[in-house]
Amino acid sequence: MGGDHGAPEVVPGAVGWAREHPADTVILVGDVPLLRTLAGDAPTNVEFVHGPEVVGMEEHPARALARKKLSSIRVATELVKNGQADAVVTAGHTGAGFAAAKLILGTLPGIDRPALAVQLPGAKPFLLLDIGANPDSTAENLAQYARMGSIFAERVMGVPNPRVALLSIGEEKGKGDARISRATELIDQTDLNFIGNVEGRDLTRFVADVVVCDAVVGNVVIKFFEGLASYILKDLLAGEFRRNLRGKLAYLLLRPGVERIRTAFDYEVVGGSPLLGVRGPMIITHGNAKRRMAWWAVDVGARTARERVTELIAESLGLAESAADAGDAAQAADGAAGPDHFSTSGG
Amino acid sequence: MGGDHGAPEVVPGAVGWAREHPADTVILVGDVPLLRTLAGDAPTNVEFVHGPEVVGMEEHPARALARKKLSSIRVATELVKNGQADAVVTAGHTGAGFAAAKLILGTLPGIDRPALAVQLPGAKPFLLLDIGANPDSTAENLAQYARMGSIFAERVMGVPNPRVALLSIGEEKGKGDARISRATELIDQTDLNFIGNVEGRDLTRFVADVVVCDAVVGNVVIKFFEGLASYILKDLLAGEFRRNLRGKLAYLLLRPGVERIRTAFDYEVVGGSPLLGVRGPMIITHGNAKRRMAWWAVDVGARTARERVTELIAESLGLAESAADAGDAAQAADGAAGPDHFSTSGG
Repeated sequence: MGGDHGAPEVVPGAVGWAREHPADTVILVGDVPLLRTLAGDAPTNVEFVHGPEVVGMEEHPARALARKKLSSIRVATELVKNGQADAVVTAGHTGAGFAAAKLILGTLPGIDRPALAVQLPGAKPFLLLDIGANPDSTAENLAQYARMGSIFAERVMGVPNPRVALLSIGEEKGKGDARISRATELIDQTDLNFIGNVEGRDLTRFVADVVVCDAVVGNVVIKFFEGLASYILKDLLAGEFRRNLRGKLAYLLLRPGVERIRTAFDYEVVGGSPLLGVRGPMIITHGNAKRRMAWWAVDVGARTARERVTELIAESLGLAESAADAGDAAQAADGAAGPDHFSTSGG
Repeated sequence: MGGDHGAPEVVPGAVGWAREHPADTVILVGDVPLLRTLAGDAPTNVEFVHGPEVVGMEEHPARALARKKLSSIRVATELVKNGQADAVVTAGHTGAGFAAAKLILGTLPGIDRPALAVQLPGAKPFLLLDIGANPDSTAENLAQYARMGSIFAERVMGVPNPRVALLSIGEEKGKGDARISRATELIDQTDLNFIGNVEGRDLTRFVADVVVCDAVVGNVVIKFFEGLASYILKDLLAGEFRRNLRGKLAYLLLRPGVERIRTAFDYEVVGGSPLLGVRGPMIITHGNAKRRMAWWAVDVGARTARERVTELIAESLGLAESAADAGDAAQAADGAAGPDHFSTSGG
């Protein structure tokens, strides 16, 4: 229900995905009469669940969640918690998504803080995390992000033996601040394919598949990336194309090339950002997601559930003793037994 | 002597600056016979000082500095320390520059850690600091960066009443990690024109004149900026121009526009990065600086000295009781009494 464009964009995206994946089920959570209208002639693998309330952008996430028992994000997350859905996808209030994941699903045993990951587009997408779930992360948090990111990259992005790196101030392994130095020691003790540090300039060189950093760094990078790419391509370059007859003619000649460049920065196809470390797949997509991006966000949710990312993270943490606790997560993540259920929510 | 291209590029840049500023003096420090050859038919306001040793990129900065008494960066910095020059400019080993500044000049009274600042190009340049002098900064450090950056922006960049912001994870004032929250409280108590937080996406929107952050964030941003701008403009766009006849024709039509875009990302003219908080102007320019960028780095050094930035920072810190200690800095920074002396070094 939430997001900048709301259900009128999210619903057609999710219904389109359902149409192309008849063995799976998409559950739309929200104001059902509205959703039915927007879904139009939806296939039979689209279901509807009542959750008409929306968490507003100005509301305190946890408090709104406690008060609005029928908010779409709360109802959708409860479906995953109760094993009635395998993943939740939202374009709504990011803070409400975090709160629902932590309060309803809970974090995996051994995970102190979950991390929000994003695939950065480019010639070859790579995973950047944390981009904002957890300011004031510790070195131990960073080491867990490395592990969780590696599993997601391998299973969902299809990268064998992903190269994992810390984003830092120098190339030399271990160089950076105290947190990065300590995280280097911790990750060095794991069996991850850890390549040490990458710098800011390396982010366009595709030298790592998983890039780990603190929330402040990650959030600044992802927003600067969007801002700078948009500034160069939309403001500066498109401005020159529009400026005069020469520009217009140049655009006509260069149009296929401009399309290729735009494709390289197409974050809609990689914009389903998983919140890793909670008991069940939670995908938080861009607040400005339109139907195409919603389609891809549902797809990431489906793949994250089908590939059992949550369960693999729990196993990888070596917490066999907490296996009973992780049962919920395993159940939520393991969709092999039958048709998958993906609840799509936006508020 | 140092830098990727070394004296063959730095010397012509510095000599060119001297030719256009006959009332000032440029002191070239290094292998004097080599410098004389490279300087060619230099004007009389170019002087030469013996300092032939170079700190290599692979050397430990402080140790190399202690051992190489005739390294150009050490000799040049000592000229400022002794009042024989008003600013030092280097394209050499950044760590050696930091070490020389701290060990020879020393930090200003009340300054815990100096900060390296850079002017980010764009429609309207703004100052970003710290970009790498000081990992593990405290909230108190950030508050001092804000003060030092504001003075530099006002005096050298010519921005009246500069808008100062913290780079963080959310727009709301004070939002971020513990360090940012605390720095917000500290800067709120000052008379700076403090506008609260900016996010990564705001860095291309020119909403602040001075953007303050920790070294890891700043370093990642500046290197990501260089990498991404180069990737879009050089790899992607220039690649399309070269791809085929249509591309070549489009380039001919769009050439003035491409030049305008390149100008917007011309970091050579803003690439003289001041190390703020030490007792005398130290300008550290890009290791890959060629003669044009060296010219501009000398120019920033000259303006920083002439505008008495060091002295103003010391005064602004309200440390009148340490006035005697700050005497060196004031002397070094105050070039009003006669022709200015700028020592240019690269290693």
